[in-house]
Amino acid sequence: MKKAVALLSGGLDSATALALALDDGFAVYTLSVDYGQRHRVELERAEVVSKSLGAIVHKVVGVDLSSFGGSALTDSTPVPKGKKGDPIASGIPETYVPARNTVFLSLALAYAETLDTGDIFIGVNAVDYSGYPDCRPEYVAAFENMANLATKAAVEERYKIKIHTPLISMTKGKIIKSGVTLGVDYSLTLSCYDPGASGKPCEACDSCRIRAQGFKNAGLNDPALSI
Amino acid sequence: MKKAVALLSGGLDSATALALALDDGFAVYTLSVDYGQRHRVELERAEVVSKSLGAIVHKVVGVDLSSFGGSALTDSTPVPKGKKGDPIASGIPETYVPARNTVFLSLALAYAETLDTGDIFIGVNAVDYSGYPDCRPEYVAAFENMANLATKAAVEERYKIKIHTPLISMTKGKIIKSGVTLGVDYSLTLSCYDPGASGKPCEACDSCRIRAQGFKNAGLNDPALSI
Repeated sequence: MKKAVALLSGGLDSATALALALDDGFAVYTLSVDYGQRHRVELERAEVVSKSLGAIVHKVVGVDLSSFGGSALTDSTPVPKGKKGDPIASGIPETYVPARNTVFLSLALAYAETLDTGDIFIGVNAVDYSGYPDCRPEYVAAFENMANLATKAAVEERYKIKIHTPLISMTKGKIIKSGVTLGVDYSLTLSCYDPGASGKPCEACDSCRIRAQGFKNAGLNDPALSI
Repeated sequence: MKKAVALLSGGLDSATALALALDDGFAVYTLSVDYGQRHRVELERAEVVSKSLGAIVHKVVGVDLSSFGGSALTDSTPVPKGKKGDPIASGIPETYVPARNTVFLSLALAYAETLDTGDIFIGVNAVDYSGYPDCRPEYVAAFENMANLATKAAVEERYKIKIHTPLISMTKGKIIKSGVTLGVDYSLTLSCYDPGASGKPCEACDSCRIRAQGFKNAGLNDPALSI
């Protein structure tokens, strides 16, 4: 079986990307990053999601991005909130974490090389998303190009690095429908940027509102809200 | 004064790159990465070097690459040794750390963005070096290209990301001569991959032997060996 590393945040998108990687026939090693995020409870969810879907191993790596600050997710800047149904503000929001996906993909690249594989999955989405620059296809392509020059395995041409982004051009509704078909239990996932310690979604941050709209568009109820 | 982030390992090259950044007129913020390296004593040297040369702030970020293993610098694989004057073996050695410079540059990118600057210095060198793929000019160019698509500041075109590699085409002898001219105290630096807890160089690993050859070519004695 071909191995892959899948980045797993505990949210809806990365859980679906993991399910798609498994459905593609990969033996998947999941990786979460404890970066000092205010919604650290997502890390517990990631571990549960990894186990429920049948990944081989789940690993958590710590890197303290909060020592740099610069984001509502890692410092005391308030997470922007809106009312249910409000449109998501345009532009890059305060929840943007400097270079987050670059740090995450770099760690996944390191992990993948020690597993002797070049296949990496990340659940980025450039349709129903928060406008982060490091979720766009041109960014992912540039990372992949760089990665193929960065590592021993790639330079020795034992394999190519491939950054798989199965969700990148899907709507949130379509992501949810795909996941349901593949058996993802979304009640285990947490998308909220500002949950309490209990992990209860705030239902007002961008991420909660994008998720709610996604379930609405999929014609489904969000099972995470009824438990 | 224009700000820059400089990656600092505690070794000879990054100390010289810092001196060159300061000489270029940058207000420099130094960054070291505690990645579980066996030669952790280099982190103490980095802090001393940063202070001695006049950086604004020195920061250490932890990221546990040793949890991935796959390198003589982070797991129990022995560091390859040779005799004084032996040529450095060709190929990528056991001391290669998977995706190390990609992880380091990603962290520098995150730090730089919170400081509102796109200038990053790294002391990579592709002449007298260990053959690591992530020290080559084509790798650095690809990282820079990716970084300009990754971050909010770059996408908003407030500034471009520039990865400065002032040493990349210099011989080790030339690096040392430049540093001496700029007042770098090389007795403070540690290049060894396998020092004892005291920080005494082994004088047999690739890094020690490349350094010894560099001082010889510069016509100088290594002040770190006489203390």
